[in-house]
Amino acid sequence: MSYKYHMPTKVFSGKNCIINNSELLAAFGRKAMIVSGRSSAKNNGSQDDVIKALQKENLSYVIFDKVMSNPTIAVSYEGAAFAKEHDVDFIIAIGGGSPLDAAKAMALMVRQDIKQENLFNGKYGSDVLPVIAIPTTAGTGSEVTQYAILTNDAVESKTSIATELIFPKIAFLDATYTKELPVETTINTSIDALSHAVEGMMTVRSSVVSDALAKESIRLFVKCVPAMKAALGKTTGSEVNQSIRENLARCSMLAGMVIAQTGTTIVHGMGYSLTYFKDIDHGRANGLLLAEYLRLVEKEAPDLTGKILAAMSLTTVDDFKTLLETLLGEKEDINKEEIRKFSGKAAKAPNINNCRVRPTEENIKDIYTASF
Amino acid sequence: MSYKYHMPTKVFSGKNCIINNSELLAAFGRKAMIVSGRSSAKNNGSQDDVIKALQKENLSYVIFDKVMSNPTIAVSYEGAAFAKEHDVDFIIAIGGGSPLDAAKAMALMVRQDIKQENLFNGKYGSDVLPVIAIPTTAGTGSEVTQYAILTNDAVESKTSIATELIFPKIAFLDATYTKELPVETTINTSIDALSHAVEGMMTVRSSVVSDALAKESIRLFVKCVPAMKAALGKTTGSEVNQSIRENLARCSMLAGMVIAQTGTTIVHGMGYSLTYFKDIDHGRANGLLLAEYLRLVEKEAPDLTGKILAAMSLTTVDDFKTLLETLLGEKEDINKEEIRKFSGKAAKAPNINNCRVRPTEENIKDIYTASF
Repeated sequence: MSYKYHMPTKVFSGKNCIINNSELLAAFGRKAMIVSGRSSAKNNGSQDDVIKALQKENLSYVIFDKVMSNPTIAVSYEGAAFAKEHDVDFIIAIGGGSPLDAAKAMALMVRQDIKQENLFNGKYGSDVLPVIAIPTTAGTGSEVTQYAILTNDAVESKTSIATELIFPKIAFLDATYTKELPVETTINTSIDALSHAVEGMMTVRSSVVSDALAKESIRLFVKCVPAMKAALGKTTGSEVNQSIRENLARCSMLAGMVIAQTGTTIVHGMGYSLTYFKDIDHGRANGLLLAEYLRLVEKEAPDLTGKILAAMSLTTVDDFKTLLETLLGEKEDINKEEIRKFSGKAAKAPNINNCRVRPTEENIKDIYTASF
Repeated sequence: MSYKYHMPTKVFSGKNCIINNSELLAAFGRKAMIVSGRSSAKNNGSQDDVIKALQKENLSYVIFDKVMSNPTIAVSYEGAAFAKEHDVDFIIAIGGGSPLDAAKAMALMVRQDIKQENLFNGKYGSDVLPVIAIPTTAGTGSEVTQYAILTNDAVESKTSIATELIFPKIAFLDATYTKELPVETTINTSIDALSHAVEGMMTVRSSVVSDALAKESIRLFVKCVPAMKAALGKTTGSEVNQSIRENLARCSMLAGMVIAQTGTTIVHGMGYSLTYFKDIDHGRANGLLLAEYLRLVEKEAPDLTGKILAAMSLTTVDDFKTLLETLLGEKEDINKEEIRKFSGKAAKAPNINNCRVRPTEENIKDIYTASF
């Protein structure tokens, strides 16, 4: 069976990996733009570490800290304009998937004059600013993917810029920065990672390489489940200890490597409406839908769900659903009109072509209904 | 635990993957140098496919088909001079590890003026010719590594050029080219791949990523064992069918991705003398030594051998040794003087620093003795 593999990002993982490899930064130029959200990079120590590393190498920097959750196209253009104004040589993106994805979009926009209507058409020149990615959640895997996923009001959903140009040049993974993540965020992001690994295995593009990475990612997730269950109902992140944090960071990075090869499935396509219209966190949205898509897949490809369940050390899709429901807690309400609307949109999502078991619009409705 | 991951090569796998992706060749320039051994690339169809792809893109080419097994430093300089003379823009390397490794050395030598005494010092400029790698055996994984391993008479061994500059830009894996490989070569090269995966897990640099790839590689090897056993004593390669060939190609590529991260262990360090002084095939040399090094590792790190044996679906190191001995058949003789000499050399090999369980010179002697 034919497949492709490509993931050129250099990954450095471990405590103090930024400062320990600061000499690598100087290779990208003299002036950096740090891209982050409003506060987390300042609070979790990551921004300080980046600044120390830049200072050690006598590099200058500017800070663009305006990226919101589910980042907009507008904030990406704004960051790109800021980068041009300050004539920066490279970008250091710190945060969850939102700052990382927005920064990857900015990297393209700084060096190429791309009109908004052409932003997602996949046709780009070859120039781009280098991006260094520092994840401070363990979920999106954006540090090792070629995707920048932006909220796109024109289609009332999220849309991907997908080009190998925006693979980060370097990813620094220091799980220390995730130490104080609230339990709810820890769980939601970990489920995003799980969803990437599981969905990757269910795509038409899965391969021996992506499956090896996915199965390991899934096993790491499962290892962390007892600690996450024990932390349920508590709020402070310190309920989840450092070795669990490190395993979640690995789980997320491996799952990012998976979707860099495979893309995602209808689960992501369906989840985008839950986030866009109902403001449900992205990872949580995937987690709410994943088991019922797995149930559909099981009907046509039981070998495939068998492999996934085996990696989870589970026997049935019901076990899988119960596990996720325990972590996700009380569900949101969804009404028939929403299901109708979201299903119509999901049935047109590009991810549908990527599914080994391709759902009909009716299947999609059933998944939404059974998931809530 | 800290780790690094980097493997930037774009891998395309599947029947006719060269011609189906011929447009990628044109991105590297107008003139290619095809590097191969004397005959196999001409006989197994790979050279024809490359030439068809080059012609389709209106690219010109020259052929350097002088690379011998265990390639010399001299042939690498000779190929580099040929490339300069013909002003080629990129290299297409076809073959087993020998042409691939020699071509990677040439790529560096064409663009940088490196004296022989500095060839292995790890200090290189940044310029290199792009290399496209087409493996026609399933063993070395050279298509996805940053190593060029050359026979080095100055140290009576093999020595590695190791630099990320020589990661191939593209690897095309079409298992069709391995169809007619003799059974003995098929087995020896597959054991080389197994050795890479197993050794990778026993290095100080192993990580969650390299272990995931290694375990999958090992599982693929195990899947192919019955077919290889059944083919024992036969000569023609067609005794091993295409689906086995594809699994071996995957096994080898995954194991190459492993050693790109981890490097190898004392097993390779010890094997080089068997090849240099006794002309024992490289993969076979590793296979002869692997079980007895595993036995040493088991004493200090039974968790580690446990993981490896589990991936092999075996219980004991004895089972592991029996399996390899079945595939390797009658062993060569080795005398005490050879053991003394080879052990002295291996105890100074760089690979020794890479071993999680570091053997003494006495241990190395014991491994040689117990292996033969």
